[in-house]
Amino acid sequence: MSFQKCLLNSTYLNIVSLPLPFIYPISAIFPISSAQNPPLYQTLVFHHQLYILEREALFEGRKKSENKAKMGSLEPETHISFNGSCNVTGKNLSTDSVINLDETKGKMGSFEPETRISNGRCNGTGMKLSTDSVINFDRGDPTMYESFWQEMGQRSTIVISGSQSMSYFSDVRNICWFMEPELAQEIKKLHQLVGNAETKDRHIIVGTGSSQLIQAALYALSPSDASEPMNVVSAVPYYSSYPPLTDYLRSKLYRWAGDAYTFNEDAPYIEFVTSPNNPDGSIRKAVVNKSGGKMVHDLAYYWPQYTPISSAADHDLMLFAVSKCTGHAGTRIGWALVKDVEVAKKMIKFIELNTIGVSKDSQLRAAKIIHTVCDGYEGGDTGGVERFFEYGHRLMTERWERLREALRESTLFSLPEFQLDFCNFTGEIRTTLPAFAWLKCEGDIEDLEMFLKSNKILTRSGKHCGADPKYVRVSMVDRDEIFNLFVKRLSVCH
Amino acid sequence: MSFQKCLLNSTYLNIVSLPLPFIYPISAIFPISSAQNPPLYQTLVFHHQLYILEREALFEGRKKSENKAKMGSLEPETHISFNGSCNVTGKNLSTDSVINLDETKGKMGSFEPETRISNGRCNGTGMKLSTDSVINFDRGDPTMYESFWQEMGQRSTIVISGSQSMSYFSDVRNICWFMEPELAQEIKKLHQLVGNAETKDRHIIVGTGSSQLIQAALYALSPSDASEPMNVVSAVPYYSSYPPLTDYLRSKLYRWAGDAYTFNEDAPYIEFVTSPNNPDGSIRKAVVNKSGGKMVHDLAYYWPQYTPISSAADHDLMLFAVSKCTGHAGTRIGWALVKDVEVAKKMIKFIELNTIGVSKDSQLRAAKIIHTVCDGYEGGDTGGVERFFEYGHRLMTERWERLREALRESTLFSLPEFQLDFCNFTGEIRTTLPAFAWLKCEGDIEDLEMFLKSNKILTRSGKHCGADPKYVRVSMVDRDEIFNLFVKRLSVCH
Repeated sequence: MSFQKCLLNSTYLNIVSLPLPFIYPISAIFPISSAQNPPLYQTLVFHHQLYILEREALFEGRKKSENKAKMGSLEPETHISFNGSCNVTGKNLSTDSVINLDETKGKMGSFEPETRISNGRCNGTGMKLSTDSVINFDRGDPTMYESFWQEMGQRSTIVISGSQSMSYFSDVRNICWFMEPELAQEIKKLHQLVGNAETKDRHIIVGTGSSQLIQAALYALSPSDASEPMNVVSAVPYYSSYPPLTDYLRSKLYRWAGDAYTFNEDAPYIEFVTSPNNPDGSIRKAVVNKSGGKMVHDLAYYWPQYTPISSAADHDLMLFAVSKCTGHAGTRIGWALVKDVEVAKKMIKFIELNTIGVSKDSQLRAAKIIHTVCDGYEGGDTGGVERFFEYGHRLMTERWERLREALRESTLFSLPEFQLDFCNFTGEIRTTLPAFAWLKCEGDIEDLEMFLKSNKILTRSGKHCGADPKYVRVSMVDRDEIFNLFVKRLSVCH
Repeated sequence: MSFQKCLLNSTYLNIVSLPLPFIYPISAIFPISSAQNPPLYQTLVFHHQLYILEREALFEGRKKSENKAKMGSLEPETHISFNGSCNVTGKNLSTDSVINLDETKGKMGSFEPETRISNGRCNGTGMKLSTDSVINFDRGDPTMYESFWQEMGQRSTIVISGSQSMSYFSDVRNICWFMEPELAQEIKKLHQLVGNAETKDRHIIVGTGSSQLIQAALYALSPSDASEPMNVVSAVPYYSSYPPLTDYLRSKLYRWAGDAYTFNEDAPYIEFVTSPNNPDGSIRKAVVNKSGGKMVHDLAYYWPQYTPISSAADHDLMLFAVSKCTGHAGTRIGWALVKDVEVAKKMIKFIELNTIGVSKDSQLRAAKIIHTVCDGYEGGDTGGVERFFEYGHRLMTERWERLREALRESTLFSLPEFQLDFCNFTGEIRTTLPAFAWLKCEGDIEDLEMFLKSNKILTRSGKHCGADPKYVRVSMVDRDEIFNLFVKRLSVCH
């Protein structure tokens, strides 16, 4: 029985969710397809995830139980034998090869099969890109910063003993009773160093990433007894997660009400003001400005590597996160600076109900990471390594220059332009260098996400941000080799 | 002006939320109260938290700005000058003393003012209990286990470098893409060692504590398009957090429908089956048993220190957490074992939306902790320390014996009795030794929580568990000295 026929004879249909952090060769995702045999592996992009419709493979001469290609059924050492170009081992497909699409996921990033993906890291050395690898820039995984922290060596290492931080409680003197005092202290120091936000007379609330804090803010700013849900708006193009974060639980407390520019109801509302904006990098102010409005300032990108620090932000409720500041997305640590004590208490109540506080281990680690950043500016030994924000700014400058250079002659793509501004932190006049490029198609192509996908570049479509599908959001903070391949590939797109 | 008069003249009313993990002397909470002057500090217990209505103190001869008693306005080194018995420094109250109730919180646990509460730990050495300290057993903070992990020393210490685990992603081969492979592996090993749950053909999903997994299960088991919310039930007495976790966001997807014993609707439902049960330690099975029902088995306490392991649980959706297994509540790590891949994917989607995954640092730490537990049973060097479950079982046995002994002659209180069962893990016949004592008042007192509060013991009332207020839930897993004081005080209650 032929390989194709075996697959067609299989009885098992399974949907595999691929979060797609890495690079997948199209040839690995579609191993078999011809006019006679319809593709057995069909991809669907849904909720920013790639789904693969997969059929279980059965092979002649073996029992089903020995060949099951179900998820997780193979050990990491199982050889993967695709004949796609992703197969860096060069092994050929034979009739008794085991097909395991799930197992292949980890390999689609062009890792050698023997490369172990451990501790969530798979940077540098283990990766081999090929010219037809699929680039995934859908999520803004800030792995660009790994190189800095590798150079810092032991300075930012944390040691946690088995008996440490066992209690639910961190600091009973603080209304945010689950917040480690060290982290609160380092956050204050960091804002004081950078000058990007007022911390005086503010309550600092730690959250499991800014996603949790966004939901805590919605909960805190919506009356619990209102007959109608609170309207939640943000100016287009907005952060693509605001609508699902508002609506996924179908709460009667709040509802997504769309673009702040067109919000015209005579009703209370919450406006998310993201500055610099995700996805387009613009510097923003509230746009609705009606009575009964409450603002949440999402300042995740208001750091010197991305934008001039023109003044210390002084809003009622401001959100920050380590993921985009220092690159530690895996710690899931964010914080809110909140003026009103009643709002602060309701946010704390939300986090208490949602997750009974926030990982102490990650809080201690974030405190150490931030301490290391600050220490570089306070005369601490950096071992000859550039200081953090200079390092980040240099990388962002180089990347934006290379991207603009690659598209200089392009009639197909355009990028936003940014004004110069004085940065109080550096004392220099600087431009904005966003963590995402908001790429626009100037040609006839109506769906830029689909066009780039056909060129093996996965991005987030403008339509998820309330904008035209002629736009996509592209991560500028992934690892060097992936960014390099992206620029190279984009420059030859016509 | 007298001290009392000063306070009465103050203009500022503030509500302070005290999470109350420690022990507060009543005399510190009510420093001034007389027939002439109504209490200026009034306590309210609401949502399992103690609130204090506080008035700002102003003093003669000083400006208001110098005397502000607002939260966080004083540095930790500010001297606290109460003449209550909590004041271990022995300083007397004078007319120019600074009153800072907020700052006092950290001190109410009878710490020396110079004791730093850091890393969420305040065990042993720093604590001094007095006979009139308030004992707080409202939350089940599993600090009893600190002593074990201190004895284990370096064996369970974890080291995380600055460049480790920076990505959002842990393992793209796993549908639970944010789960560290080491943790999944150690969880499987632990279940295999203990024999308390089947892991074969299950998806393991990591969560930020079991609270997040409870919500993920509600989201996954409720249809997203139903016209009516899904009913959520649990048999009385149920875990007091099920109702608020179901209803706090007023979701249209699901709603709390109360006691499973009286659930009589002809509609789909989710039943939480907690076994051993929180709060009463009973071994449970589903009680509704109607078609259209979905079960969530919360097995947080199904570990050998609490109950005989009679068989490997084999349900569709089972929840566990490190907090009650190893005592590491601060890591906020729980896990679900899920049979159905579609349910697993929806739970993963919930966690992706809720917090974009789970702290890598805590996952790595939990993996190390569980590894250390297993290692003790696999011939690893324990440095002469008892193995973990023996240690835990010995402590629980001692505590339950002491509590039963103290109440043996009591006509006021009773405790549940448990049957003996064979434990497959130890090969012994054993009884259940729950992490909570479900204390019942046999006398005329109708509200046992209030009665115990007047005896300076804070507990969780049975009414939060759908039961009679003649019951309270008391933590059996707090630190030794606090448990000892509790038993002593209870034995003289009449």
